[in-house]
Amino acid sequence: MTNIEITTDPAERGYLRIATEEAWSPQEVMDEWARMIRADEGGQGFHSLIGHYTTSDSARARFVREGLVSADELRLGHMAAGGVDHAILSLTSPGTQVFSVDTAREMARLSNDCLAEICRDNPQRFSGMASVGWEDAGTAVKELERAVGDLGLKGLMLNSHIKGHYLDEQQFWPVLEACEALDVPLYLHPQTPNDDIISTFYDAGLDGSVFGFQVETSLHALKMITSGVFDRYPNLRMVLGHMGEGLPFWAYRLDYMHGGMVRSGRYEVIKKLDRTITEYLQQNVWITSSGMPAPEPILFTRKVVGADRVMYAMDYPYNYEPAEVAMQESIPFTPAERKAFFQDIAIDVFGLDRDAIGAV
Amino acid sequence: MTNIEITTDPAERGYLRIATEEAWSPQEVMDEWARMIRADEGGQGFHSLIGHYTTSDSARARFVREGLVSADELRLGHMAAGGVDHAILSLTSPGTQVFSVDTAREMARLSNDCLAEICRDNPQRFSGMASVGWEDAGTAVKELERAVGDLGLKGLMLNSHIKGHYLDEQQFWPVLEACEALDVPLYLHPQTPNDDIISTFYDAGLDGSVFGFQVETSLHALKMITSGVFDRYPNLRMVLGHMGEGLPFWAYRLDYMHGGMVRSGRYEVIKKLDRTITEYLQQNVWITSSGMPAPEPILFTRKVVGADRVMYAMDYPYNYEPAEVAMQESIPFTPAERKAFFQDIAIDVFGLDRDAIGAV
Repeated sequence: MTNIEITTDPAERGYLRIATEEAWSPQEVMDEWARMIRADEGGQGFHSLIGHYTTSDSARARFVREGLVSADELRLGHMAAGGVDHAILSLTSPGTQVFSVDTAREMARLSNDCLAEICRDNPQRFSGMASVGWEDAGTAVKELERAVGDLGLKGLMLNSHIKGHYLDEQQFWPVLEACEALDVPLYLHPQTPNDDIISTFYDAGLDGSVFGFQVETSLHALKMITSGVFDRYPNLRMVLGHMGEGLPFWAYRLDYMHGGMVRSGRYEVIKKLDRTITEYLQQNVWITSSGMPAPEPILFTRKVVGADRVMYAMDYPYNYEPAEVAMQESIPFTPAERKAFFQDIAIDVFGLDRDAIGAV
Repeated sequence: MTNIEITTDPAERGYLRIATEEAWSPQEVMDEWARMIRADEGGQGFHSLIGHYTTSDSARARFVREGLVSADELRLGHMAAGGVDHAILSLTSPGTQVFSVDTAREMARLSNDCLAEICRDNPQRFSGMASVGWEDAGTAVKELERAVGDLGLKGLMLNSHIKGHYLDEQQFWPVLEACEALDVPLYLHPQTPNDDIISTFYDAGLDGSVFGFQVETSLHALKMITSGVFDRYPNLRMVLGHMGEGLPFWAYRLDYMHGGMVRSGRYEVIKKLDRTITEYLQQNVWITSSGMPAPEPILFTRKVVGADRVMYAMDYPYNYEPAEVAMQESIPFTPAERKAFFQDIAIDVFGLDRDAIGAV
């Protein structure tokens, strides 16, 4: 029943399903991660996350490992069975962000070339987001310009902290400036909490996608907002997965307590901003449903940040559940709202070519 | 306008407003905290939280400092102006949890005696929750029995971590067993993140009630659930403030990813539980609106955990906003739902005496 419902023809259905946070990796990156695991390089959060997926024999780890490196029959078959018409691929977490400066630069370039080829070969099914080596900002800007301008990639992926560093730090601002100038979105994706704050999460087995991911990523997004990144770059567009990593739920309290801190002068780093935190969520942030397919959080988040800012994602291969597509189809949207959720918002945010992808 | 609406007579209104997470402290505890601040004792999270409120000259810090120690005209005046008829008081964060074992034991006893006297003097306006010195579990159990049995206190307050330790640790189980046996709720209240995980939050000015509080407290609640505390004590009742510290928003993902971890065997500490995480939220947890008065999160949370588990709190003196009472009065409840939200659920959860408090 479920499969019959979700595998309808897009023309008949009235929209494509564009999945916007779909994880992928070249084999070379997987191999380098595996080498680092064996060599005990990269830190606790990296070992927790990638050690599991590169070495575990569990059915889930094998499924993820095989899905990540596929952009052919395996992935296309799962997309078809899951009713996904188009996938926006990006280098899976932690991306280049555990590599040395040189390796990060090389792997970003390799990943971008490889992803661009996948998209060129199958423009109806795939778009991609760029990776960069963040610790060398000058080269990162050039690589982003190349990936967007020459290779046709549609955004920039960041897997939260960069060896414990965050985008509120000035060293990364040239890359944000380039995103704004190129008018491509920055997708802020989870990673395990940085090694300075991971211990209590890790010891409880809660550092990964069950909980630590969303703490790490919401903290990162909030640091960006409260440090004034979006006052400096008011046209910077940021995408958050997992229903905004929980921030929409906290909108009122974030505004109330941030206002209190500004008035009391409790922290030197907390300053009056141009807008409320909720307004940044409503004006600079778009949100995807990766890993959060339940109707209630989706409907809730639309009310907080705006219906035109919440779009579909599957989070393949970490979440591959055709039932989750059906779950989101069951949301009591109007036809126009449903089309926006599954198709049109993604086209606008990532600047996809409607003809090339076969938009309805 | 707002004040006219919220200060109606309870009989005419049809229910009391019972505020369930109202912060208070004996002057002796405030003085001991202030001494520790001056002596540079107690750690980074304690200094961040209490250093501000005991020493800052800002209007907000002064308001909080004066409100905390009051159970007389000042607080009663604010309750009247805010339309709160009855307040369940508890020792404010971090409670006894930064003191030495001996001082914690003494201060818990002092706090319980003092709070019991406040409640005896004005049973219509005040109920209270007990404190204990957690690191000496044997004495803590006896003190809880005394506070509930002899003094008439209505629950046990815990301000999250106990010097970096959490209630999943066996050393604290006797206290949980006593809560279950006495049938009093455990209120799990925020504190700054423990000193092992506070750095990134603190450096960004985000360790307090704006964000770090909810990370710390949701982590604590989740550790309790995933470690099997509620399988061991299935009748233990836990209250979470701040709309469940965000956990209801994550219900689907918590269940999905926890299930994945159980199947893959990724962590030794993650085991199959008797129920889903959502079911513990629906069966062992009650939730208050402290600091989260916005209608949308309240309505959302009721849908996830059940309408009969979500009740009113103000979070005085940290949140003292009559407009927030009006905001919650504006929620499109039926009369019976509104009565339950403001009055009846609190009476049931804390076992309040309807006649003594003047329930409608």
